Amino acid sequence: MNIAIDAMGGDHTPAEIAKGALEASREISGEIILVGDETKIKKYLDSGKGDLSKIQIRHTDQYIEMDETPSLALRKKKDASIIVAAKLLKKKEAAALISAGNTGAIMEAVVLNVGRIRHSNIKRPALSVVLPTYRQSTILLDAGANAECKPAYLLQFAKMGCTYARNILDRPNPRVGLMNIGSEEKKGNAITVAAYELLSQSGINFIGNVEPSGLMNGDVDVAVADGFVGNMVLKTAEGTAEFFTKVLKDLIKSEKLAMLGALFQKNVFRKLKEKMDHSEHGGALLFGVDGICIKAHGKSDAKTIVSAIRLAERMAKQDIIRKFAEDMAGDTADEEEERREGEISERSA
Amino acid sequence: MNIAIDAMGGDHTPAEIAKGALEASREISGEIILVGDETKIKKYLDSGKGDLSKIQIRHTDQYIEMDETPSLALRKKKDASIIVAAKLLKKKEAAALISAGNTGAIMEAVVLNVGRIRHSNIKRPALSVVLPTYRQSTILLDAGANAECKPAYLLQFAKMGCTYARNILDRPNPRVGLMNIGSEEKKGNAITVAAYELLSQSGINFIGNVEPSGLMNGDVDVAVADGFVGNMVLKTAEGTAEFFTKVLKDLIKSEKLAMLGALFQKNVFRKLKEKMDHSEHGGALLFGVDGICIKAHGKSDAKTIVSAIRLAERMAKQDIIRKFAEDMAGDTADEEEERREGEISERSA
Repeated sequence: MNIAIDAMGGDHTPAEIAKGALEASREISGEIILVGDETKIKKYLDSGKGDLSKIQIRHTDQYIEMDETPSLALRKKKDASIIVAAKLLKKKEAAALISAGNTGAIMEAVVLNVGRIRHSNIKRPALSVVLPTYRQSTILLDAGANAECKPAYLLQFAKMGCTYARNILDRPNPRVGLMNIGSEEKKGNAITVAAYELLSQSGINFIGNVEPSGLMNGDVDVAVADGFVGNMVLKTAEGTAEFFTKVLKDLIKSEKLAMLGALFQKNVFRKLKEKMDHSEHGGALLFGVDGICIKAHGKSDAKTIVSAIRLAERMAKQDIIRKFAEDMAGDTADEEEERREGEISERSA
Repeated sequence: MNIAIDAMGGDHTPAEIAKGALEASREISGEIILVGDETKIKKYLDSGKGDLSKIQIRHTDQYIEMDETPSLALRKKKDASIIVAAKLLKKKEAAALISAGNTGAIMEAVVLNVGRIRHSNIKRPALSVVLPTYRQSTILLDAGANAECKPAYLLQFAKMGCTYARNILDRPNPRVGLMNIGSEEKKGNAITVAAYELLSQSGINFIGNVEPSGLMNGDVDVAVADGFVGNMVLKTAEGTAEFFTKVLKDLIKSEKLAMLGALFQKNVFRKLKEKMDHSEHGGALLFGVDGICIKAHGKSDAKTIVSAIRLAERMAKQDIIRKFAEDMAGDTADEEEERREGEISERSA
């Protein structure tokens, strides 16, 4: 099985992407297809430290910048590296796609060019992030693919989260929590109240509402939310961790004695960074599309790309796409959707 | 002007509440009315360190526990300390109310017993929190009073936030941001898209959407969100800060050398705690009700209560309730609401 990598997406392209691919080439069983500017990519493959027989280059000179508006950019640049990579996934020339580029552009390119898992009744693909938490890691979805969700989507997100948690995170019976502003059943807004009921009756291991403190403590294996809320939770956690780090650094720098103390804590700060940084956990995943899709952090270096390649291979070996479809069998999102629609419009009036 | 304090709400009652009141009694101009169990409260007033002529006790032996369901508890305990305190606010026997108790019970007791600011057209009271951020403090509202909001409420929240920022936080021209998952105008869900338009046309200093990273950086003075999103942002920030602190402590404790280093950083950790803890900023505020209402942190000690009393006095001296009403003059929430309703139901289909 092959892995297509968008060599032009991210802050350090194609250097770190190519270096990561080269490093991983020695250990993977399939091939890596680097999509991007051939001349630029080749420069970084000459070190001879990898297995070049495992690396192909698919040339294109178009790519999407980090700050471009996804839909506009995708329409303008038909041969953008992310589109070419998505088409490899579509044609099954690659089982997985990795990009450290513009998140919106990746999601849109993959959803449009690859589509949803066939025969699965999946309504909406979801962006999923494996978050570091105090006791373990937790998968949070939807972390931003769908700003508007119906309750039935949240049940599908929960099912996909469970499939991933069982097969990749080794949680035999994943605990699912619904992100909410209180623990009681009737807490929250119309979406969470309706989703609570659906999740309760679904047969999954639903443990009820989970507040952000419970999420960060690691009380659940899978946390579901609509994409707006999930994205706010993810970005608030990132923003707070960054704020905390900056304040801590400033305070240490403001005192000579504290700076002296910090000399004894190099290990601590390195481990803290590793623990807090969710990109260390392989990146975000787009669930529900008909192929493995990993969005690595924009700041990805070669090491992060190697992690992403390993994760992609693991997911492919577990045949995760087939398992997503199997675990979704019997999903009745269509009927649920219709039934709920009336109820929600009553509630939100 | 008098301040009513629910002496029975919080984790350390009435000890820390009474001690805080005693300490503050030496500096305030009005009187403090402690509401709760007279015998228990009196025990803590005997130290003689305060001005007892400034402290009254209003006896009641009912109070609401932190883990009770607010609406049930309020119905069952008609003489609960928070209800008695709310009635003092209603009858203008007190200009301000402070409680460290059950947030839901405080909001419900005050909304039901005191009501909204008269002649102000305020649709929904909002819970407001002054968050510590990197560059300054920022007021976030609604932080949890209204799980379902209409766009017109968000504009009212923005106006109330500005009133507070101008009069209490000394920001002459507060920058208002709309909490959102991206910076572009059309980002987000139906509520944020509609609220963006309303805020743009309102004449306030609206700087557009703000993501959580911008919030934590202090890019705005006032951040508005619906109560579900605001509460998630607040709790995620708290949960992440707690997680970060626990991991840092664990890592330091795991290495002798790092523990040695920490001995030189006592000041740093104390300042870090002070900076990150939003309860140091006086507590949460309920805006829009016809009296000053401060919800202090459940863990409040005497020092926190003193801060809350000082804040209450400052707000009363600034005549903040009248200013809320003045700044809301000409608000057309009713018409906006009707006009929007059609648009939203179209969008969310």
